Amino acid sequence: MSESSSPSLLPSKTEIAEQLDSRDELAKVRARFVLDFGVTYLDGNSLGALPASVPGRLDDVVRREWGELRIRSWDESGWWTAPERIGDRIAPLVGAAAGQIVVGDSTSVNVFKALVGAVRLAGGGEGNGKGSGRDEILVDATTFPTDGYIAESAARVTGCTLRALEPGAVPGELSDRTAAVLLNHVDYRTGRLHDLPALTAAIHASGALAVWDLCHSAGALPVGLDEHGVDLAVGCTYKYLNGGPGSPAYLYVNHAHQERFDSPLPGWTSHADPFGMRPEYAPAPGATRGRVGTPDILSMLALEAALEVWEGVGIDAVRAKSLALTDFFLECVDEYVPEGRVESVTPVAHAERGSQVALRCEDAGEVMRRLIERGVVGDFRRPDVLRFGFTPLYVGFADVERAARVLGEVVAG
Amino acid sequence: MSESSSPSLLPSKTEIAEQLDSRDELAKVRARFVLDFGVTYLDGNSLGALPASVPGRLDDVVRREWGELRIRSWDESGWWTAPERIGDRIAPLVGAAAGQIVVGDSTSVNVFKALVGAVRLAGGGEGNGKGSGRDEILVDATTFPTDGYIAESAARVTGCTLRALEPGAVPGELSDRTAAVLLNHVDYRTGRLHDLPALTAAIHASGALAVWDLCHSAGALPVGLDEHGVDLAVGCTYKYLNGGPGSPAYLYVNHAHQERFDSPLPGWTSHADPFGMRPEYAPAPGATRGRVGTPDILSMLALEAALEVWEGVGIDAVRAKSLALTDFFLECVDEYVPEGRVESVTPVAHAERGSQVALRCEDAGEVMRRLIERGVVGDFRRPDVLRFGFTPLYVGFADVERAARVLGEVVAG
Repeated sequence: MSESSSPSLLPSKTEIAEQLDSRDELAKVRARFVLDFGVTYLDGNSLGALPASVPGRLDDVVRREWGELRIRSWDESGWWTAPERIGDRIAPLVGAAAGQIVVGDSTSVNVFKALVGAVRLAGGGEGNGKGSGRDEILVDATTFPTDGYIAESAARVTGCTLRALEPGAVPGELSDRTAAVLLNHVDYRTGRLHDLPALTAAIHASGALAVWDLCHSAGALPVGLDEHGVDLAVGCTYKYLNGGPGSPAYLYVNHAHQERFDSPLPGWTSHADPFGMRPEYAPAPGATRGRVGTPDILSMLALEAALEVWEGVGIDAVRAKSLALTDFFLECVDEYVPEGRVESVTPVAHAERGSQVALRCEDAGEVMRRLIERGVVGDFRRPDVLRFGFTPLYVGFADVERAARVLGEVVAG
Repeated sequence: MSESSSPSLLPSKTEIAEQLDSRDELAKVRARFVLDFGVTYLDGNSLGALPASVPGRLDDVVRREWGELRIRSWDESGWWTAPERIGDRIAPLVGAAAGQIVVGDSTSVNVFKALVGAVRLAGGGEGNGKGSGRDEILVDATTFPTDGYIAESAARVTGCTLRALEPGAVPGELSDRTAAVLLNHVDYRTGRLHDLPALTAAIHASGALAVWDLCHSAGALPVGLDEHGVDLAVGCTYKYLNGGPGSPAYLYVNHAHQERFDSPLPGWTSHADPFGMRPEYAPAPGATRGRVGTPDILSMLALEAALEVWEGVGIDAVRAKSLALTDFFLECVDEYVPEGRVESVTPVAHAERGSQVALRCEDAGEVMRRLIERGVVGDFRRPDVLRFGFTPLYVGFADVERAARVLGEVVAG
């Protein structure tokens, strides 16, 4: 502002925040969450805030459905069908038609199902007798580590080799040996959004299958699984979907593949006739084939209640607000934080940005500790990254301004 | 009673029940559960009743730990260490020293970890380069179906063959080709208890590893995992451990095997340094190596609260009461049910009996429907089995007498 002869004519960041908040159509959704005053919560990309609909619903599940109805609830309270029902509730948020998503297990377990399933669908690996010659899995080298570890196991049990690559390098490395590619939609560390449509198309052009991890994109931006012909996908529900700590993950199997999807975890609840208790396995049709064991009802129904916050909320509006929030945060950081003190590693281009901003900062661990003390909650990723997640359903522009201002104060002294 | 000239001198079953209840040391434990009057709940072997400690604790987890502390709870509320902590709480109930049990995932997923892990520990299967020649898995042919389905998958991914056998036939079929054997401790259908010490010893004598499924025994009778040198074991927590619908299962890996245990699901939370976010996998020591993804906290902490009912309760006392309950039930059925109408398929010998009684009955589905209408809740297993589970912590002898009496009335017409 030093160049202006009349600084008071320019609106301050506080004033801009006020204006942006007053025009925010999603501002009303914040009341659907339990949020305390004095805390600016920018860690919804790690653990989403508590939706106000959850505590009462879960109490009813425990006291009445479990405590009074007990086993009758498997039918009468809809417990048995919860994995598919909740999957269908998530479906529109990731651009999937109904009947392709099933909720249950952790993300890691679903990565295993999806990747082994993809190799088998490609006729790849050893011992499938299909001779496709597709014996290689490619995995995102920048992925959240669990995907890489599980991919290594998937390669081992299917007789494939595994290569880790930067997502941008994938198109150049695809070949007729590639069986499947596992990619993250948004880099958990930098917040970089990868080009799902183009990468999926390139993978398909090589004859391989595309498996996407949506942990850091689902609920924050449009994914378009059906539109872009994604083969299989997984995601967690405790970040932008606010399902609670360690809430069940989900598996998407495109309709086109469901009939041939061959899960490496064929538990009894994925059987065509689970109560027939037959010794021979016969897979259920549809999304149900992605199930494994008995559904974890308490966590699953907490998630279902949490998804009520999406009532009347479109993912495009969420994306627009998310970009406005991260843009504004970068502007405020620019204004409040002494130059050279932090450096954004999150792409500037909207097409390459998820819903978080990651700032490299020399003493990031200590800085985050002090931010949290002052009520600005992000998280620290070793060795030197301050990570701030922006959940458009409950983060406002005043939060953003305050976070950047406090960050400026903390790093200044 | 027709042979007695003075029937009134013999105590009635009602009187006997009253006496047995008055002498029952565990009778006081019933108050730790939410149970309604007028219902005799004999389905705790499917879904345990609600412990009174659960609703309040879970509400606190949701409102305070998640809603207020949010991500801080991973440390401050002990979320991160819950899988091992709760495993150690289950350990004494199954005769395991601390540090060998980790809670998480479903039983089916844990069967996969345990069985693939066992084959690898035996140096078996293909592609391990150890040349042990052990390329066969044996599985209990009478098992709950999921174990058989998952065993088939475990065989496929390790390059083994699979053979299903009656547990009694296992010792005669073991050979130097056997890598691992998966057995159920109690048959879910008949309630037959298998001889874990003898079968484990026979399996070991052949050089193979023993994997036991404890779903229908843990919490109902002593298991003695350490004493009998069981290699790996799994179990659910929603039956006799009362953890709630679909609550997380557990995996036991004997101390002797932990260092070489090689999980097919090496997720990030089983890493030696999970927050190092390293691209290379390095397994954690101890029970933690059996983890996979982010722990499912709501269900897990509900389970932890549920385990409080075991305070001051020894598993030997539970076993003694369990046998007294099933003995008394069989006597009452004998007295109240018209001859030939039902036939017990549960062994008479205590050493062969779990904590349930299964009665074959021609129109079992309809009979169970009418029993439930009259407040006697067991379950029906196709095609013709009435299954009654006896949870010594909350089932009393008067319940038993009433259940048999109502059964007699229902089948009489």
